[in-house]
Amino acid sequence: MARQIRQTTPKEDGYRMPAEYEPQKQVWMIWPQRPDVWRDGAKPAQKQYKNVAIAISEFTPVTVVVNGDQYINCRAQLPESIRVIEVSNNDAWARDSGPTFLVNDKGGLRANSWQFNAYGGLVDGLYYPWDKDNLLADKICEVEGVDYYKQESFVLEGGSIHVDGEGTVLTTEMCLLSKGRNPNLSKGQIEQTLKDYLNVEKVIWIKDGIDPEETNGHVDDVACFARPGEVICIYTEDKNHPFYEASQAAYKTLCQSTDAKGRPLKVYKLCLTKEPVYSIPNAHIDYGYGSKPRQDKELVIASYLNFLITNQGVIVPQYDDENDALAIKQLQSIFPDKEVVGVRTKEIVYGGGNIHCITQQEPLVKK
Amino acid sequence: MARQIRQTTPKEDGYRMPAEYEPQKQVWMIWPQRPDVWRDGAKPAQKQYKNVAIAISEFTPVTVVVNGDQYINCRAQLPESIRVIEVSNNDAWARDSGPTFLVNDKGGLRANSWQFNAYGGLVDGLYYPWDKDNLLADKICEVEGVDYYKQESFVLEGGSIHVDGEGTVLTTEMCLLSKGRNPNLSKGQIEQTLKDYLNVEKVIWIKDGIDPEETNGHVDDVACFARPGEVICIYTEDKNHPFYEASQAAYKTLCQSTDAKGRPLKVYKLCLTKEPVYSIPNAHIDYGYGSKPRQDKELVIASYLNFLITNQGVIVPQYDDENDALAIKQLQSIFPDKEVVGVRTKEIVYGGGNIHCITQQEPLVKK
Repeated sequence: MARQIRQTTPKEDGYRMPAEYEPQKQVWMIWPQRPDVWRDGAKPAQKQYKNVAIAISEFTPVTVVVNGDQYINCRAQLPESIRVIEVSNNDAWARDSGPTFLVNDKGGLRANSWQFNAYGGLVDGLYYPWDKDNLLADKICEVEGVDYYKQESFVLEGGSIHVDGEGTVLTTEMCLLSKGRNPNLSKGQIEQTLKDYLNVEKVIWIKDGIDPEETNGHVDDVACFARPGEVICIYTEDKNHPFYEASQAAYKTLCQSTDAKGRPLKVYKLCLTKEPVYSIPNAHIDYGYGSKPRQDKELVIASYLNFLITNQGVIVPQYDDENDALAIKQLQSIFPDKEVVGVRTKEIVYGGGNIHCITQQEPLVKK
Repeated sequence: MARQIRQTTPKEDGYRMPAEYEPQKQVWMIWPQRPDVWRDGAKPAQKQYKNVAIAISEFTPVTVVVNGDQYINCRAQLPESIRVIEVSNNDAWARDSGPTFLVNDKGGLRANSWQFNAYGGLVDGLYYPWDKDNLLADKICEVEGVDYYKQESFVLEGGSIHVDGEGTVLTTEMCLLSKGRNPNLSKGQIEQTLKDYLNVEKVIWIKDGIDPEETNGHVDDVACFARPGEVICIYTEDKNHPFYEASQAAYKTLCQSTDAKGRPLKVYKLCLTKEPVYSIPNAHIDYGYGSKPRQDKELVIASYLNFLITNQGVIVPQYDDENDALAIKQLQSIFPDKEVVGVRTKEIVYGGGNIHCITQQEPLVKK
């Protein structure tokens, strides 16, 4: 039951990161609570996290981890069907601070524990300290008895990568080449680390994401794989939309790319919100030492692409926007065999992310 | 993976508490840290807890739970072969605040979560608050995905009961009838609760334990089962020994008792220390709100009986006393097929308990 910290690489050991559309055992989430990140003492966000957890649990078991001081409340808010356990944390982005799980297709399950520095550390990170979040992946692995590879210096968040499970990873230059993460590594060295630790052969580089000021352009707001050889990309023809340029550029890059198997990618278009989404003016957000002060009426990063594929379900953000239904319709046609479920998550996006950012899937392995 | 809280009783569902000598999957412990309970910032106690954990782990996997603020230190102190996970706690007595596990002999594993009030609550409890310890059993069950029976008012510590796995429980009147636990229940009602929740038919009542001021006389310093029909009892003929009267009385009670199957008990004698053990004068112990102040040179409850049976091992306290070797010799003759291992644990007994008090076995079930 005790886990081991592996000194080799996943590639050497025959482990790979599986795609999100491969079978999942459970989905991990973190209970939000920071009053200097989430408005109104995080109560509106907690309610929407709960709704996301319940939506996922229709398809896949969910474990929510929580700080000790919110344990009783979290346990009481969530239904009994959702597992709640204590793990200390600084904020609630399981995609980014959680483990990146790996499989070896022989029943083996392992994980990567990356260095986590709150999206840029002392250069342009979003909160300080991040000590608990940097231990979160290790602790989850130890709870589950999963061996892991520990990065002693390489900084990465799970939201900055998407894989097809067949040798290809999607990422962005804006994030992985940012000054707050691995400034001493060349692009080639970063590529090699991805290849060694995700066990991929090809890195597809999109230039920019849509939130330079927050995650420095995580790919999980821009594009992801629908299945091998097929990707989904945010898309708009509205030149006034704040994400117009980045989405057009990403779309073009993907249309011109091939994957690790040499296949040209089929690229599906996914709409953006009709209207840009802004934060609520005069929201009650605490001033906090170490967290980025929120401005009144800031543009928030409302992307329908930040959905989670989980077994037979696809859980999609809804923003009370005219295009909410269109996004679901488009995704339902891309995933005809899955049930596409929308969840209203504006309170989550006010905090800087959405359904994909707050979840981390653990693959189901056959023993 | 989510656990359920059961509304029935173990007896109704065919679950029973197995004996300590039945196969174990793992042993749970809690990392000690209170500077108002353990001298010198708990560092000497931590070292001895570590040695106990390592000794157990030669026979059975060990999981140590720890508060968030001691996680990094605890993880660094213990070898990789021991699992460390975060669970908030008030003090470090897994026997008493941990779950009492149950099996149904069809591969089922469940547990009891008793009410825990720090050995007597506001009447004569040893520390305040005890809120985290009262949730500890629930949290461990949820980590492991084990369904449990939750006592909403019945107070019990695991150290106050020993079972033979065949329908008999040993306990003491001093503890179970104390004013700080279940003052509104009659002896008959308490017996019935034990019968319903441990699934036993017979309660053997020993009158007194040896630490009226601390646990109010937990049986696990006095007597336990070696196997069905056979018990071990502390014993001395030294009339000046502080535990002379209680041990003689317990011995006589057991010699006159029969178990649930109607067998007269075979009673083995286990020596006490040659010299009484006293706490260290002028020890550096913090003053703490809510913890019982320690006196200089207090008699401590140094009993060799507070050992743990764990698969092929028996882990026994050693007190740097002339009788240390005799205790091991006596136990080795009682357990000829097991390896009896002594561990020096004076620093633990200064805190009020010993190896049995700080451990909680989880049975191994065959699926």
